[in-house]
Amino acid sequence: MEQASPEVRARVTASFERQGLMRHLGARLTHIGPGRVHIELDSRPEVTQQHGYIHAGATGAIADSAGGYAALTVFPDGTDVLTVEYKLNLLAPAIQHIQAVGTVLKSGRTLTVCRLEVFGSRDGERHLVATGQQTLIRLQPGPSTEAR
Amino acid sequence: MEQASPEVRARVTASFERQGLMRHLGARLTHIGPGRVHIELDSRPEVTQQHGYIHAGATGAIADSAGGYAALTVFPDGTDVLTVEYKLNLLAPAIQHIQAVGTVLKSGRTLTVCRLEVFGSRDGERHLVATGQQTLIRLQPGPSTEAR
Amino acid sequence: MEQASPEVRARVTASFERQGLMRHLGARLTHIGPGRVHIELDSRPEVTQQHGYIHAGATGAIADSAGGYAALTVFPDGTDVLTVEYKLNLLAPAIQHIQAVGTVLKSGRTLTVCRLEVFGSRDGERHLVATGQQTLIRLQPGPSTEAR
Amino acid sequence: MEQASPEVRARVTASFERQGLMRHLGARLTHIGPGRVHIELDSRPEVTQQHGYIHAGATGAIADSAGGYAALTVFPDGTDVLTVEYKLNLLAPAIQHIQAVGTVLKSGRTLTVCRLEVFGSRDGERHLVATGQQTLIRLQPGPSTEAR
Repeated sequence: MEQASPEVRARVTASFERQGLMRHLGARLTHIGPGRVHIELDSRPEVTQQHGYIHAGATGAIADSAGGYAALTVFPDGTDVLTVEYKLNLLAPAIQHIQAVGTVLKSGRTLTVCRLEVFGSRDGERHLVATGQQTLIRLQPGPSTEAR
Repeated sequence: MEQASPEVRARVTASFERQGLMRHLGARLTHIGPGRVHIELDSRPEVTQQHGYIHAGATGAIADSAGGYAALTVFPDGTDVLTVEYKLNLLAPAIQHIQAVGTVLKSGRTLTVCRLEVFGSRDGERHLVATGQQTLIRLQPGPSTEAR
Repeated sequence: MEQASPEVRARVTASFERQGLMRHLGARLTHIGPGRVHIELDSRPEVTQQHGYIHAGATGAIADSAGGYAALTVFPDGTDVLTVEYKLNLLAPAIQHIQAVGTVLKSGRTLTVCRLEVFGSRDGERHLVATGQQTLIRLQPGPSTEAR
Repeated sequence: MEQASPEVRARVTASFERQGLMRHLGARLTHIGPGRVHIELDSRPEVTQQHGYIHAGATGAIADSAGGYAALTVFPDGTDVLTVEYKLNLLAPAIQHIQAVGTVLKSGRTLTVCRLEVFGSRDGERHLVATGQQTLIRLQPGPSTEAR
């Protein structure tokens, strides 16, 4: 898979490392391509719901971050990104390990739309466990969040 | 606010306590009414995004759980609930403390739809930081998740 | 119910009358309040799906317009509005007549979020047939649609 | 592109022809494949919004029908389909002609999830004008809509 430029990868990695939630969940940034970012999460008791599956909220959290960073890869240096909204369908229980893939579908001056896909692995087989869509807003340098 | 019956509150509380993610985030179940559940979360570095606000994924996680448990309060004993999909708009940065309110809008034999609202507190004032909608499916006793 | 100012009502009405789709469907603008607009539609064969209910697409169309005009009531004169995205849950079949209510939940400099509700009438009783959420963008005078 | 079986195509076509809204809008069913259906619409004053673009509601209506019929192609004979919810992002103005493509992403016993894509043509070039996601429910023979 194509990698983003070293500058973009450094920028995305630095931002990801400031996300306390990603570290707390144990999420890992595993691919930074142009308009495409992967974030992975292993199941452990800290990320489950009442049946022991990975919680829809944890699935949503890494999907949201994957989309946000996919958008950031196509933004000019010095800008930042905020999630406007996201929607996620949960298709199958996520059991051992999940990989969220955020892909930019359209990036405009103000708004960017990403596809969110989350794949699970079960017995070595990869399948779609969640699919969604996200809208993001680009923030100019020194923005107030009221821009949103 | 009206409380659910002791039986329902016990059922919801027991399920919530099995959600490893809620405990890991530090989320607290603060109200269980008929068709309405509140979950609260204090900000701390473990739940933040890159600017120090509460991460949209953490906001989404407690909103998803609040809606799921709101649905569970109106289901017959012995049934369970799974999220089919949820959609969340982030309206304002969530800074210190958030309260997610899940409210059942319509509950049918198979599907239930909840409104999700998340309120933040800033300088003692309560304001809406996120608003969303969620579809859930009722699982009969001994269901396979393939019911979904 | 509170009415918007005559100026705002004139502006919304003029825009609505330019929407060929609303006229073609037979939709009527029945209330223009500050941050709230109603659009109504009677069932007839031209707006149905295969079972004779009002088509989810017709329900969505008037809900989308109701939200868009609700946003327009709070915008400054000379600006315009475009739908960024909308999400609608269909809760019950819509049979005879529907009323879409768009209500502004939050209006920022760039983006506005509306609640969309659609009520049906059956045997004189009003009930919720669809509920949704919508994100809109404000366009400055002389904007290119690339602003989106 | 692969065609669905003659039986499935007949079933989908018969249902589409009973949708008064599709006929009223001038929508045409142009492809019925296994798990994939195309519906097309030409712009004319009857389907526009206030700037003369195709109305988001008309775009949503044909996208919703395309997804619903894509689901129907994978259902057993004698069953029917209802939209549970759909979400659509509008990415670019739709000017002359649009093609909605509904594609089944996952079909379970009860629920089916479709991707919705709408392509526009401008100066002979095809581009994505809207993208969305839809949840549908399968109805057994003789169902009450309360199944939803």
